[in-house]
Amino acid sequence: MLDKPENSFGYTTKVSVSQAQKARFLKFAGDTARVAGAQTLPFFRVNTDVENKHTDGRFDPVTEADRTAERTIRDAIGRTFPNHGIYGEEYGYKPGNGLTWVIDPIDGTRAFMSGMLHWGVLLALFDGETPIVGAMYQPYTDELFLGDREVTHLFRGQNKRLLRTSTCEDVSSACLATTGYDWFSTEDLSRFERLKAAVQMYRLGGDCYLYGAVAMGSVHIGTDASLNAYDIQALIPIIVGAGGVVTTYDGGNPSMGGAVVASANHTLHSQVLDLLQTT
Amino acid sequence: MLDKPENSFGYTTKVSVSQAQKARFLKFAGDTARVAGAQTLPFFRVNTDVENKHTDGRFDPVTEADRTAERTIRDAIGRTFPNHGIYGEEYGYKPGNGLTWVIDPIDGTRAFMSGMLHWGVLLALFDGETPIVGAMYQPYTDELFLGDREVTHLFRGQNKRLLRTSTCEDVSSACLATTGYDWFSTEDLSRFERLKAAVQMYRLGGDCYLYGAVAMGSVHIGTDASLNAYDIQALIPIIVGAGGVVTTYDGGNPSMGGAVVASANHTLHSQVLDLLQTT
Repeated sequence: MLDKPENSFGYTTKVSVSQAQKARFLKFAGDTARVAGAQTLPFFRVNTDVENKHTDGRFDPVTEADRTAERTIRDAIGRTFPNHGIYGEEYGYKPGNGLTWVIDPIDGTRAFMSGMLHWGVLLALFDGETPIVGAMYQPYTDELFLGDREVTHLFRGQNKRLLRTSTCEDVSSACLATTGYDWFSTEDLSRFERLKAAVQMYRLGGDCYLYGAVAMGSVHIGTDASLNAYDIQALIPIIVGAGGVVTTYDGGNPSMGGAVVASANHTLHSQVLDLLQTT
Repeated sequence: MLDKPENSFGYTTKVSVSQAQKARFLKFAGDTARVAGAQTLPFFRVNTDVENKHTDGRFDPVTEADRTAERTIRDAIGRTFPNHGIYGEEYGYKPGNGLTWVIDPIDGTRAFMSGMLHWGVLLALFDGETPIVGAMYQPYTDELFLGDREVTHLFRGQNKRLLRTSTCEDVSSACLATTGYDWFSTEDLSRFERLKAAVQMYRLGGDCYLYGAVAMGSVHIGTDASLNAYDIQALIPIIVGAGGVVTTYDGGNPSMGGAVVASANHTLHSQVLDLLQTT
């Protein structure tokens, strides 16, 4: 059981959820992420040179895509679970009954703007202590990662694949991935540098997608700093459901973000946290 | 007309190619990259934990995928153009009649190993001075970038899209992308840092795929150092065909690799080369 995060949207208790309820929430998360993701595609790889000639003022396709997707998700939650709270990147926080949907309509905004592929729609349900279901959907590749802390699947077209993290238990054989250095504080960067020096290989870039790679076993350690709750919550049930571990750099509850690290398994994570210790 | 690269596989003259021949080479490049790319997919995202239990010794899916794809391409060239030369990452150089096919069976090997999406099969035809057709195929997303220095298309499923680079003519508004810092010499890194300081936004990661993003107009400047001929040749006709410019950091012929930079247009490229000048 994870410790209570410091800021849990003001709630002081964890809401109990039955298996049947959780299954319903999981299905809703996947379906809703798909619908919202499809709505971002008309804004992906548009020619802003052309669009800016046709509109008054500057056309910002990313902002449009972000807002459209988040409104769609908030509307679906409002219709289906009117008592639930909502916390989203674009439209902020709306309190509810203790269960809170946490939305990043496009995680990897810069990747989206650059026409690259490592971005996705993130949707999680937070129970006051931890996210219990999580969906990450990449609409261009039609990949839906869906996890509930017990099991994780990757859906693509008609395919459904059970995901398992790697059995790599040695940090010196591990592949490490992080989105980039700009989000690290000086202290977090020096902690990260120790980890980077210990692994076999590291990769830059990735945003949410690198945590999907952790879940599928091809990346062994994923980390980013300065995360918001909406950047990481959806990914936690996906990673944990595939057999992985996610904490802050100090081993705490990662639900509210900050400097967060995910490993393929507990043995590896223990080595990772040792390397990340403040000296 | 570009200057002659220093090493042109030993050839001293440029081979003239008719429009009809070029069209045939372009089609061959696209078709062959597709076939080879399809052969890499069985090795993508395989569970090496499992595979290593079933084989004697260590199963290396990337090496297998690389070699299989390059053999397929070399066989197709041998059947179709028996007099042409071949230069590939895995199986080296075979001299020919002055036209040389240049192969990177998987560009972005580490991305491939990590289960990420920014990698592709690269195939170019070099005329002794410059690559005249180029294909980049990402089989997982089924995207084929195909260019002949005059026109560039992106094929995906039944879709065919004409690509045009951005009209961004101001480096301070530009989005810059590079695969990572590890390939820069100290001097090239300091040149790159001046460029990075001048742009609006930069992205890390990408390998060949970032040059596809330059061709489609969503990245304005792409650069990497320590490139081999097979890392860049296929991308040159794609970028140039979409309206972009590619040279070495000193403005020379990029065909043999090294520190290479691609810009969306000549105005932007001139600013980029000024920033990259040795001080």
